[in-house]
Amino acid sequence: MADVLASSASAAKQTLEEGGVFSPRFDRDGLIVCVTRDAGSGEVLMLAYMNEQALRLTLETGFVHYWSRSRGRLWRKGDTSGQTQKLLEMRVDCDQDALLLIVEPGGDGGACHTGRRSCFYRRVSGPPGADSLVFVDAAGPAIASDEAAR
Amino acid sequence: MADVLASSASAAKQTLEEGGVFSPRFDRDGLIVCVTRDAGSGEVLMLAYMNEQALRLTLETGFVHYWSRSRGRLWRKGDTSGQTQKLLEMRVDCDQDALLLIVEPGGDGGACHTGRRSCFYRRVSGPPGADSLVFVDAAGPAIASDEAAR
Repeated sequence: MADVLASSASAAKQTLEEGGVFSPRFDRDGLIVCVTRDAGSGEVLMLAYMNEQALRLTLETGFVHYWSRSRGRLWRKGDTSGQTQKLLEMRVDCDQDALLLIVEPGGDGGACHTGRRSCFYRRVSGPPGADSLVFVDAAGPAIASDEAAR
Repeated sequence: MADVLASSASAAKQTLEEGGVFSPRFDRDGLIVCVTRDAGSGEVLMLAYMNEQALRLTLETGFVHYWSRSRGRLWRKGDTSGQTQKLLEMRVDCDQDALLLIVEPGGDGGACHTGRRSCFYRRVSGPPGADSLVFVDAAGPAIASDEAAR
């Protein structure tokens, strides 16, 4: 019986990893994590989450929608800021619990609500235990409002 | 009083986003999500998680350690497969709940346990509702064992 279960689990794993069916695995909160990459520069712009509705709307409209965990609501990227993300390609990882979005940013080309192009604008520096952050993109917030990147 | 609280929250947010102190925010499971990028090709290789110990060991040793959610244990990437990840740079995002790791892959240069370079080897294709997956990297598993990428 253990062999049967192991064999069944192995078949399911094989289908998930080597199959041609898109079966996104949402977590216990109904979310899937997304890495967003600029199609032009190749830069990693941000990391965010989608629920099932955000994923469906993204595929239907061709523009990226996320689920905001802090605000608890669906969010069409760029609605406030103009920093839309046109979806050029969506990829899924081996065990289908993460998405890679390759996008063409609209508006001023930025993605971060602080006004910077990428949310990853600081690098960790210094000896372990005394880590500090160094700004890679030192430009201060170009956009005053917190609403900016929505 | 509400104003005081709002002002305090705003100050904390400002420190988190514009400050020079590394304050990684682990989730309720004690994990932080990591996007890993190949320093050479710029390719997004994988998405995984670190707990506090994995993060500390990564910074101390210069080689990437993750926390495996499925196996419930700390994992030095490449211990089994040789696909180590030498950390060249670590970045943190605006609200410090995600990391970007820029790495030099060791071994055969791959990162995925299926034997492929990147875990994102399939793209979502087809009309919404009838989504299928197309292999971007069609190469079958080069490494037989599931242990391969560990």
